Amino acid sequence: MTTTKKPFKRLLLTGAAGGLGKVLRERIKPWADVVRLSDIGDMGEAGEGEEIFQADLADKQAVLKMVEGVDAILHFGGISTENTFENIMFANIQGTYNIYEAAHRHGVKRIVFASSNHAIGFYPQTQVIDADDPPRPDSMYGISKVFGEQLSRYYFDRTGIETVCLRIGSSFPSVNNPRMMCTWLSYDDLLEALRVSLLTPRVGHTILFGASNNKRQWWDNRKAAHLGFQPKDSSEQFRADVPETGEYPPEDDATFNYHGGKFIFDGPMYKD
Amino acid sequence: MTTTKKPFKRLLLTGAAGGLGKVLRERIKPWADVVRLSDIGDMGEAGEGEEIFQADLADKQAVLKMVEGVDAILHFGGISTENTFENIMFANIQGTYNIYEAAHRHGVKRIVFASSNHAIGFYPQTQVIDADDPPRPDSMYGISKVFGEQLSRYYFDRTGIETVCLRIGSSFPSVNNPRMMCTWLSYDDLLEALRVSLLTPRVGHTILFGASNNKRQWWDNRKAAHLGFQPKDSSEQFRADVPETGEYPPEDDATFNYHGGKFIFDGPMYKD
Amino acid sequence: MTTTKKPFKRLLLTGAAGGLGKVLRERIKPWADVVRLSDIGDMGEAGEGEEIFQADLADKQAVLKMVEGVDAILHFGGISTENTFENIMFANIQGTYNIYEAAHRHGVKRIVFASSNHAIGFYPQTQVIDADDPPRPDSMYGISKVFGEQLSRYYFDRTGIETVCLRIGSSFPSVNNPRMMCTWLSYDDLLEALRVSLLTPRVGHTILFGASNNKRQWWDNRKAAHLGFQPKDSSEQFRADVPETGEYPPEDDATFNYHGGKFIFDGPMYKD
Amino acid sequence: MTTTKKPFKRLLLTGAAGGLGKVLRERIKPWADVVRLSDIGDMGEAGEGEEIFQADLADKQAVLKMVEGVDAILHFGGISTENTFENIMFANIQGTYNIYEAAHRHGVKRIVFASSNHAIGFYPQTQVIDADDPPRPDSMYGISKVFGEQLSRYYFDRTGIETVCLRIGSSFPSVNNPRMMCTWLSYDDLLEALRVSLLTPRVGHTILFGASNNKRQWWDNRKAAHLGFQPKDSSEQFRADVPETGEYPPEDDATFNYHGGKFIFDGPMYKD
Amino acid sequence: MTTTKKPFKRLLLTGAAGGLGKVLRERIKPWADVVRLSDIGDMGEAGEGEEIFQADLADKQAVLKMVEGVDAILHFGGISTENTFENIMFANIQGTYNIYEAAHRHGVKRIVFASSNHAIGFYPQTQVIDADDPPRPDSMYGISKVFGEQLSRYYFDRTGIETVCLRIGSSFPSVNNPRMMCTWLSYDDLLEALRVSLLTPRVGHTILFGASNNKRQWWDNRKAAHLGFQPKDSSEQFRADVPETGEYPPEDDATFNYHGGKFIFDGPMYKD
Amino acid sequence: MTTTKKPFKRLLLTGAAGGLGKVLRERIKPWADVVRLSDIGDMGEAGEGEEIFQADLADKQAVLKMVEGVDAILHFGGISTENTFENIMFANIQGTYNIYEAAHRHGVKRIVFASSNHAIGFYPQTQVIDADDPPRPDSMYGISKVFGEQLSRYYFDRTGIETVCLRIGSSFPSVNNPRMMCTWLSYDDLLEALRVSLLTPRVGHTILFGASNNKRQWWDNRKAAHLGFQPKDSSEQFRADVPETGEYPPEDDATFNYHGGKFIFDGPMYKD
Repeated sequence: MTTTKKPFKRLLLTGAAGGLGKVLRERIKPWADVVRLSDIGDMGEAGEGEEIFQADLADKQAVLKMVEGVDAILHFGGISTENTFENIMFANIQGTYNIYEAAHRHGVKRIVFASSNHAIGFYPQTQVIDADDPPRPDSMYGISKVFGEQLSRYYFDRTGIETVCLRIGSSFPSVNNPRMMCTWLSYDDLLEALRVSLLTPRVGHTILFGASNNKRQWWDNRKAAHLGFQPKDSSEQFRADVPETGEYPPEDDATFNYHGGKFIFDGPMYKD
Repeated sequence: MTTTKKPFKRLLLTGAAGGLGKVLRERIKPWADVVRLSDIGDMGEAGEGEEIFQADLADKQAVLKMVEGVDAILHFGGISTENTFENIMFANIQGTYNIYEAAHRHGVKRIVFASSNHAIGFYPQTQVIDADDPPRPDSMYGISKVFGEQLSRYYFDRTGIETVCLRIGSSFPSVNNPRMMCTWLSYDDLLEALRVSLLTPRVGHTILFGASNNKRQWWDNRKAAHLGFQPKDSSEQFRADVPETGEYPPEDDATFNYHGGKFIFDGPMYKD
Repeated sequence: MTTTKKPFKRLLLTGAAGGLGKVLRERIKPWADVVRLSDIGDMGEAGEGEEIFQADLADKQAVLKMVEGVDAILHFGGISTENTFENIMFANIQGTYNIYEAAHRHGVKRIVFASSNHAIGFYPQTQVIDADDPPRPDSMYGISKVFGEQLSRYYFDRTGIETVCLRIGSSFPSVNNPRMMCTWLSYDDLLEALRVSLLTPRVGHTILFGASNNKRQWWDNRKAAHLGFQPKDSSEQFRADVPETGEYPPEDDATFNYHGGKFIFDGPMYKD
Repeated sequence: MTTTKKPFKRLLLTGAAGGLGKVLRERIKPWADVVRLSDIGDMGEAGEGEEIFQADLADKQAVLKMVEGVDAILHFGGISTENTFENIMFANIQGTYNIYEAAHRHGVKRIVFASSNHAIGFYPQTQVIDADDPPRPDSMYGISKVFGEQLSRYYFDRTGIETVCLRIGSSFPSVNNPRMMCTWLSYDDLLEALRVSLLTPRVGHTILFGASNNKRQWWDNRKAAHLGFQPKDSSEQFRADVPETGEYPPEDDATFNYHGGKFIFDGPMYKD
Repeated sequence: MTTTKKPFKRLLLTGAAGGLGKVLRERIKPWADVVRLSDIGDMGEAGEGEEIFQADLADKQAVLKMVEGVDAILHFGGISTENTFENIMFANIQGTYNIYEAAHRHGVKRIVFASSNHAIGFYPQTQVIDADDPPRPDSMYGISKVFGEQLSRYYFDRTGIETVCLRIGSSFPSVNNPRMMCTWLSYDDLLEALRVSLLTPRVGHTILFGASNNKRQWWDNRKAAHLGFQPKDSSEQFRADVPETGEYPPEDDATFNYHGGKFIFDGPMYKD
Repeated sequence: MTTTKKPFKRLLLTGAAGGLGKVLRERIKPWADVVRLSDIGDMGEAGEGEEIFQADLADKQAVLKMVEGVDAILHFGGISTENTFENIMFANIQGTYNIYEAAHRHGVKRIVFASSNHAIGFYPQTQVIDADDPPRPDSMYGISKVFGEQLSRYYFDRTGIETVCLRIGSSFPSVNNPRMMCTWLSYDDLLEALRVSLLTPRVGHTILFGASNNKRQWWDNRKAAHLGFQPKDSSEQFRADVPETGEYPPEDDATFNYHGGKFIFDGPMYKD
């Protein structure tokens, strides 16, 4: 009986109790002998081939231990929707710094950083952009994602740690509004984006937009063609749920104006 | 018994008696309860779901009435081949102004403007262009198309009317020369281009090149990826009629030199 | 006694009774043995070295005669402020066509076309542009200037007539508002722009922005460096008349938002 | 007796006890009736036309009070050299957020953000860049400056607060190494950069490189030409102190390899 | 019985005894009545529809005869791996000059020049390039290929001879390392690239990258879309032979750093 | 008594008996204790601080000796006008290779390569270019200059030898035709270009256009701003000798069509 060798001995997934973390937990098992799962929240029992490491990303010493002995990191941890600046600062800004500094100290060579379309969410939906267009964050959350992209650029220039910043669109089981017809990223395509990000021999510091093979596209991935990400799914399967009508949206409806959709109005800006 | 709601209540098609107008007349019916047909020439009887409005586009008052009550406009009217400047000025320049001003006054929000490859016809066939390359019209006709593109840009900036300028290649039943192997736009693909132009929630002011999925391409549509136009047909089906030979064309044969083909010599320039 | 040979035998200046026409009438005399002056309005008596040719630019036969025998043309004629579309169409669109067609028939090789900043007037004042940025007209007047730029591009590609399109900023004796601190073109610098446009051996089809050497600049002339236009004056001489204050303009004040200033609200759009 | 009205009633200068803060304290007095000075450190007595407001930028409530009643802000506060990430996070990241949120709540319309060449310090000295080139921070300090640039972009898109991000080179009394021959910004030119940033009617969100009129230049300011920043001084006055030799620097000497000079090795990365 | 006319009467293939020459010898027969085969080495007997012309490309008189009477040339001759500069100079630099000068004298209108990825081999594998990116040769061999590209540009500008420079990736029967997963060009796709290069009516001077439809791509062919090259094969068929592992290559392993792979260390630089 | 230390101990000037070589021979003496002069022709007696080394650049062993012990090289040798390909190949292609290989073996770190406007001579005079525009050589001579630019790029990537490619315009005592009004490079400005190329601490591989501060400019040096080349002279001093007339040049007069002027017709192409 033969067994295929898995690419990695130990892979770290942060944010394992989050929405996408739960999706990934089972699916990435074929890539590593051991998947170390980390979250600030409860992750249940460790399954076979799993290690559970519950910690706050803002806790530097905990993160140092968390990263020890891993070959590569899928950094999905932190707050994944709009929140107060302070909460986001600790979870996403300090948390991501802790991950990179720990990776540097332990010699981890590759990180996939779960960035977001909200890093460029203030672009109008009538403008197609690529990875060289400057960020235009649409929220505190989006700003923290741009921070992670810049921090990882620095760590690449300074220490050689390679990162793929995956600007995830809308990764959900299905589509329920016109914006998601553009931004939808199926779970299978998310997996494929992570797979090529981990397994391409050299990635340097690459920004990859994460959308499925949808008909309408706001994001041009040609600067990342060296990764070979070729999504297979299409939001057209949900067309019946999102019928095309001739009723044009009001001009002040953010959902139809910006890449980031209504996120720009979700902010805490006027609230505390 | 259920009936699907059509996207529009009333759609205006100008140039309904022209070559493409006749092609579109039947095919766009599924998009609107009523299709209002307009032309300076005879359009026959109004069929079911049709309104006939015969008028000269240069007649401002007539156009004001023509546009009243419509949700969106497919502006295919005017002169569609080379002609004297004066004729083109009245039919295409004044006519298009009348359409936009009427649309503005009646609150029409979306227009698809039938522009043409002759707006960029003086580019050499060895240069691939996209929507940001400056116009290079090849004829009085082409100049009038650039005028329409600029006028619609102004109306978008000034009033918010959204326009897709569709730079139509060669939309005919079949292909009969090497240039059309690049420029051919099948009727089905023309329909699809119009459909996405009408139904995409936000289009702003977008220039879309209209060619089928032909092998050789002079026009790069990536600036219009937000429309999701994906042509299905290919001119390769006519390859047998346009055999590839090693007999290279003479250097002064415009058909093989310019995107616009022999149009540059069709002009009235030396004639009146 | 020796006399220096003047560069041209006969130079045509259209729009000679207009604001800039009057400024140029005397100043261009050193460039030609005879200056032919044309306008629809009264130009007074012909002075020494002058020919008076009163005509409507929309009159094709008159323009044909007007252009006969001239070496080069400074085309300043037509309507120079916002007006109804129809008036602008006849004076600026048909008029400019008549000039180019007449130039073609009579073998005139060089035209300087008085274009305008209103061809790009809808750009925001916080964006620096160059000649490759697409036009964004701010008015019917601006649209007619874009028309002239495109028409002259066509005549260059088709017949070889060379044109410099001079996008004139604000050419007045002095400056009286903050926008003009950017857009001011002194009469001396206007003359120099015309001089290099006429005397550079090859100009092809070049777009030249016409502003003096003002501190703030919205227009980058580097695509026209082959003309060698080096303005000498600066709007800083009028700084005392336009004091800098910390009172920021309201967001909806077009004067401070767009290259074209308040022109966008001068239009006839809502008036007839 | 007449007095010239000063542009602002109240101007806030943060970081007033820092190196550049002390330089600016006296020099910006002509711009405002009252200059409010803020720092975490001691600023001495308030002089005429001065208000002293000692506070920690990381203290949100204090910053809210600090910003109340000011017309515009020169944000020079925070840590201005490399330091631990945590220190920089509180002083520069949280501190700058507090400034912008306070500005938003109090309706402040204009901020000049003291960014730094260390936001782009990892570019090689043989590459000339402009404001559209992506950031390449060279340190934790540099990362915090990129954060401020992105945060201010967000506040502009979301609330309309205008910011000039001034990427200051080396603003010191004199020059003492070859890198500073490129990066030197005299105090007078710094003042002029701040002046145009405050007084230009519209600045939107603009990135301005801050170097004097030195012969060698790594930074191309043409995207900010609308500000009219024209430095007058030149590092050539210090040429005698920095003689040009033919002894080429070793390849691994960061001082001669990167825009940011030896900063990349100043980091705390290996130290705590 | 009818026979289809072949596109060319006589086609010249240089380098016919080389690796790719042997592959092409049989496959290009359908394109010409006679294929003239040339090489410095032995080519065996002439088959049906073949002419054998053994010669040294550095021999100008021989090349003049070799080119006489041919309609188009596939120039695959010369040294195809790294070698001493002198050997490469005679075979590739002088040889290619002789071919072009002979083509010019005999009125040959079209040449396909077998250029190489080694013309741009010093680009990092994390950078996607297109035909407008400047060459970065990785070897003496690569320099000779850039020479041929520049020489053919000159002959096109000066004489009108059209050339497609095909920058061949790795054209072998199969793939055996990770770099070839990107660079592989199947023989069928090579044939198709040659076919469109020969049969497109106008090609001017075009640079075409030659890779199959592999998932990962370093080379963006959109500037050559007018040729209609659409590769059909994919290196994924060899995936089993080149398993993806999580063992990242050492930073100094050229095979994983540069487009050109280990070629940069194959050079004779340190050897003679 | 003090003496200022010269930047270099030994500087090699190739082509010392050529037109510019003679100009430079005296003027570069302040830069080095010893100037080694090389040429294939007679250079007279060695003056103080001079070494004479007569050799053929095509002689590899001679060049190896020639380069021994020098700190930097001004490579002006080879054929400097149009000639047969073979002559140019040996003198300019093989000769430049020999220089670089010798520099590599002897550890020379910096070379200034006398390239030429004929490397880009086929651009039209109405197009302003910069260092990123692809070469368009206008002659065999121009092709050899592009070769040198590419070879030096390779040696920089492979070995770290830094090169400034100085694309010299027309470096003569005076100006006698309209083209030279654009291309003139005074001897003083030539000296300054060489000085900054030698003394800038890091130059990498930089292309610098060599023209004086003439009014009309075809070449934009902003990609080389890190060198700080600021020419002082202007061709306007010769304006009286090159009067501006309104007599436009014939369309087929290369002198007025191409950057390279009549060089394109100087070639040996039709002669042997």
